[in-house]
Amino acid sequence: MKSLSDHVPSRVIIEGVDPEIDGGRFPIKRAVGEDVEVEADIHTDGHEVLAATLKYRPEGTGEWSEVRMTPLGNDRWSASFPVHEQRWHEYALEAWIDTFATWRRDLQKKAEAQQDVTSELLEGAAFIRKTAKRAGDDGDWLRGHADIIDRGDQQLGVEAALDETLATVMARHGDRTFGHRYERVLRVWVDRVRARFASWYELFPRSTADEPGRHGTFRDVEKRLPYVAEMGFDILYLPPIHPIGRAFRKGPNNTLTPGPDDPGSPWAIGGAEGGHKAIHPDLGDFDDFDRLLESAKTHDLEIALDIAFQCSPDHPYVKEHPQWFKHRPDGTIKYAENPPKKYQDIYPLDFECEDWRALWEELLSVVMFWADRGVKVFRVDNPHTKPFRFWEWLIANVQKTHPDAIFLSEAFTRPKVMKYLAKSGFTQSYTYFTWRNTKWEIEDYFTELNQTSVREYMRPNLFANTPDILPEYLQTGDEAGFRIRYILAATLGATYGIYGPTYENFERAPIKAGAEEYLDSEKYQLRHWDWDRPNVFRELIALVNGIRKENPALQFDHRLRFYPTDNERIVCYGKTTPGYSNIIVTVVNVDPYHPQSGHIKLPLHVFGLNVDDAYQVQDLLTGAHFLWHGESNFVSLDPRGVPAHVLRLRKKARTERDFDYFM
Amino acid sequence: MKSLSDHVPSRVIIEGVDPEIDGGRFPIKRAVGEDVEVEADIHTDGHEVLAATLKYRPEGTGEWSEVRMTPLGNDRWSASFPVHEQRWHEYALEAWIDTFATWRRDLQKKAEAQQDVTSELLEGAAFIRKTAKRAGDDGDWLRGHADIIDRGDQQLGVEAALDETLATVMARHGDRTFGHRYERVLRVWVDRVRARFASWYELFPRSTADEPGRHGTFRDVEKRLPYVAEMGFDILYLPPIHPIGRAFRKGPNNTLTPGPDDPGSPWAIGGAEGGHKAIHPDLGDFDDFDRLLESAKTHDLEIALDIAFQCSPDHPYVKEHPQWFKHRPDGTIKYAENPPKKYQDIYPLDFECEDWRALWEELLSVVMFWADRGVKVFRVDNPHTKPFRFWEWLIANVQKTHPDAIFLSEAFTRPKVMKYLAKSGFTQSYTYFTWRNTKWEIEDYFTELNQTSVREYMRPNLFANTPDILPEYLQTGDEAGFRIRYILAATLGATYGIYGPTYENFERAPIKAGAEEYLDSEKYQLRHWDWDRPNVFRELIALVNGIRKENPALQFDHRLRFYPTDNERIVCYGKTTPGYSNIIVTVVNVDPYHPQSGHIKLPLHVFGLNVDDAYQVQDLLTGAHFLWHGESNFVSLDPRGVPAHVLRLRKKARTERDFDYFM
Repeated sequence: MKSLSDHVPSRVIIEGVDPEIDGGRFPIKRAVGEDVEVEADIHTDGHEVLAATLKYRPEGTGEWSEVRMTPLGNDRWSASFPVHEQRWHEYALEAWIDTFATWRRDLQKKAEAQQDVTSELLEGAAFIRKTAKRAGDDGDWLRGHADIIDRGDQQLGVEAALDETLATVMARHGDRTFGHRYERVLRVWVDRVRARFASWYELFPRSTADEPGRHGTFRDVEKRLPYVAEMGFDILYLPPIHPIGRAFRKGPNNTLTPGPDDPGSPWAIGGAEGGHKAIHPDLGDFDDFDRLLESAKTHDLEIALDIAFQCSPDHPYVKEHPQWFKHRPDGTIKYAENPPKKYQDIYPLDFECEDWRALWEELLSVVMFWADRGVKVFRVDNPHTKPFRFWEWLIANVQKTHPDAIFLSEAFTRPKVMKYLAKSGFTQSYTYFTWRNTKWEIEDYFTELNQTSVREYMRPNLFANTPDILPEYLQTGDEAGFRIRYILAATLGATYGIYGPTYENFERAPIKAGAEEYLDSEKYQLRHWDWDRPNVFRELIALVNGIRKENPALQFDHRLRFYPTDNERIVCYGKTTPGYSNIIVTVVNVDPYHPQSGHIKLPLHVFGLNVDDAYQVQDLLTGAHFLWHGESNFVSLDPRGVPAHVLRLRKKARTERDFDYFM
Repeated sequence: MKSLSDHVPSRVIIEGVDPEIDGGRFPIKRAVGEDVEVEADIHTDGHEVLAATLKYRPEGTGEWSEVRMTPLGNDRWSASFPVHEQRWHEYALEAWIDTFATWRRDLQKKAEAQQDVTSELLEGAAFIRKTAKRAGDDGDWLRGHADIIDRGDQQLGVEAALDETLATVMARHGDRTFGHRYERVLRVWVDRVRARFASWYELFPRSTADEPGRHGTFRDVEKRLPYVAEMGFDILYLPPIHPIGRAFRKGPNNTLTPGPDDPGSPWAIGGAEGGHKAIHPDLGDFDDFDRLLESAKTHDLEIALDIAFQCSPDHPYVKEHPQWFKHRPDGTIKYAENPPKKYQDIYPLDFECEDWRALWEELLSVVMFWADRGVKVFRVDNPHTKPFRFWEWLIANVQKTHPDAIFLSEAFTRPKVMKYLAKSGFTQSYTYFTWRNTKWEIEDYFTELNQTSVREYMRPNLFANTPDILPEYLQTGDEAGFRIRYILAATLGATYGIYGPTYENFERAPIKAGAEEYLDSEKYQLRHWDWDRPNVFRELIALVNGIRKENPALQFDHRLRFYPTDNERIVCYGKTTPGYSNIIVTVVNVDPYHPQSGHIKLPLHVFGLNVDDAYQVQDLLTGAHFLWHGESNFVSLDPRGVPAHVLRLRKKARTERDFDYFM
């Protein structure tokens, strides 16, 4: 600031605004019904009283709504606003010197010190009269009040000046002439609740046939809907359903010599029958697909599709738009590589080709095609091998028409790339949860996800396994390992997923030692599952998904907190609702081999429980009730049984008549 | 990003740039000769090799200089550049996909796997020929190299392709077409070294007369220069030297009933003799003042003046520009207040008055007046009661003409206000050091100052006392307290100050119990000091200031680190130069009453010392040499003597011939 402006600059400073991602470059995310809590440092030179408001509105609407900010101490202020619509919202901050409140405070101090305040009363009355001119209906009342203040009776004048109603009315018409608007208007993208809270189940449609050896169809998937719904899942995610290329098709166990009937990988998209807007003929037709979508709804299930922007050599794009691919000096199209590895069944798209605009528009039209057809949840394959700004553009455009569209980023890659995809618009993200097994790893990672600014833009979706990842922990941890990882996923994350039926059937043979690839992976061959086999794990899954639906604390992530235990194999954490009306404490033995026991220590004072009072604890997994006293309690967990407690804490009621009753 | 741009957006992301203050709103600060180390997260989708440069230049000059950034792992990159001129500099970041390096890396992997790379060699040669077109003098060499690469001999081609010189030449002409420039150009203000490293001494000129009762003059101050210089100070700061008002003049000990000869507070600026551009007649005239400035130089001392933008009721501005003050309804000018306290000898200026532009320009002209006269160091009184943006404008304008001007912010106020003043341009800042006495307080506060982003814009100036602040610790800590606080100030801070001669004479009587105000404060009366009295404390001060000048480690703040001790009264910290050529470890007993002893633990591995080797330790305060072994060593400090060690560590030389010699 080297030259002076036309108007005297405001003396008020607004800085340190939180949440604000990268100086406002990216929006924060919320779901319908949530609050946006905003804090900022607001201060000025001198000692005058400040006033501040948080302003907010659905983007593109006219008037701002306002809520007064409250000082928290140390020049930090806070306020929050709710969001109710699936759309963009914006928020802004404004602060000003509250001349009237400053005058009132100083007058009070002087009056208490018995000083002569004649001049102060004259000054205040004049200020009130000035305010009255723009105070509309309040004008007359203010003028009348001013007349009392400077009538000449000092005691009466001070009384009138300090009148609470006057303070309220004057605050309503505060003079913001010298006020300051925060330099940036910040944005919130508001999703539906499903974006934050959901249980995902992944299934290969072609493995859903009743009888072994037959290619499953959408009709078969329909028959499996009760199986999935009974376990309490919300989203049924299908790998790509498009025609599969023949050129360089992969055989069982990722071999290069497939037989004529081997189905190939669903991610080798595109064949003579069509590309990303076509359905694999062996799965059925669009009528079957539409029926599946409708049928899923009747089971409270939503179908999610896979978006994998890559092509098999047989994809129609290859002939119709060869300019969308990279070429060798001899004119042939380059296949995917990670030297020295070659992926000859896959042609990557060239997002920077000269014809990039047409390519980008075509890919947008692919997502719009399925969204218009009723699919609103997309799991995006390897987004980290396509430009960030492509996704930012695509997602914003899809959500313009379909604000209920959900995009899950399948980026298992470097931390900053994963975060940048989330910033760029992905609704939710795969995480490193899949490899975080020890108590320390879990605490460290989830603290980063939920207690840093990452939480404002990245929603974790905790997949315990995927068709690409059979984690070593599951390979070696016996059936107990599956139960442990399942309970962790479902209680650490408001959104989580499993790839079944491998998961509930404890499939854990890798293709070779040291690999995370499944043996006889469904990616390369049909599998057959016995859908009717009794399975107590499915009952546990159903139970946990039911607990998640009944307990709002488990439907949010930000309030996850870890509690101390004296056993390094026992992890303990709580999720709570604001006000602590719902308190869920989960205790997990992360050792799949041995029973573990120890003490957990709960922050009763934080929960609003008196350390000396008893409180009721119900294990929602077993139904058992305990009456606990004090912060420290003993737990013992055997991985051969249920390796966890999912405890609901209730305050003991206070009256004698409610002797045995817990709220 | 909802619509597509003309050019395909860059795939490269630059984020998390450090240092960057508030999204580039404020500059960072450096002194001449320092480096600016810049880090950033730089990444892209996919797996290509990136290249990045840090660009920098003195602001307003043409060409950018560039330095290549180095990856640190986890997508973090770093580089640094030096600043050599007192002026604004700017820096920017640019990154791009390094097509050639990517091709080279992949070719190497394929060649090592014995794959056919005919196509790759053709492609690379073509790319080199394309580069050759814009490679100037390197063009022919590149074309020749390309001819070898695609001649048809695969082994020869690969060898030529992997040639190191080729990599260097290609890097020189890297294709940045799809590169990305970081959105913001960031700024550095570069001061002279004195802004970072100096010892300040504050003195009331009117108390410098030889004989008691006479008003000291600039000629008397001249006589005191050897006294100050012998203690090794660099800056001699004088409270306001202007005429003092008579109206409501304060008497001794802040009384309201002064006698006719009481001199009044120097901060009640302005009288019949003039205002902020005048000199108090009892001090001398401008010739005397100019002589003092010159004379100070011969003692390696620089004179600092006080800028206190407030007026006594007798200030010429009051009559000439009544519109620059606030008025009561009866037309009289308001004096300063902190209700119910009244400061009737001070009229604050109204920085938001209608005539604010003229007022601001006049105040700027005050600083320019003294700067043009040769004063380049200003201690600014209570800047936190004037608008931040006024200071930002004033300082920037003064430094346009006087880049060597130094502004010290005397803001003892709330933390965020102090920081914002520093952001707004103040060269250095008073701190809470004055009240940080315990080990925990000192460690916590200096960690905040030196190891967070605060260090980029706020330079601490550690005053141990001021005319307004006789800290309780000094009141009650006996003479030992003065020594302890002095050594802490001079070794914790590259810049520090004391208000003397009170300090070296252990003045510690407060005006009343519980107050920080001095009894018989020089603010309200003349004092007389015996300048010739022998005083061992002055020798200690001279010794410490000498140590500071000889040891570059003590001339910087950012590398201050605290080390563990097993006694809560013993604080231990080190300052080091990069490369650890100068290692100063200070150990202080912060208990002024009792001897304390215990073990300190030094991070020898950080210093580059082998834990098993002996190292030489010299106590620079006593001259004593020790040969220490291991990380943990015993110290014992008696506050009645020297309450600290200031240790210089030296590596033991490695050769037998240098048996007794330490580098």
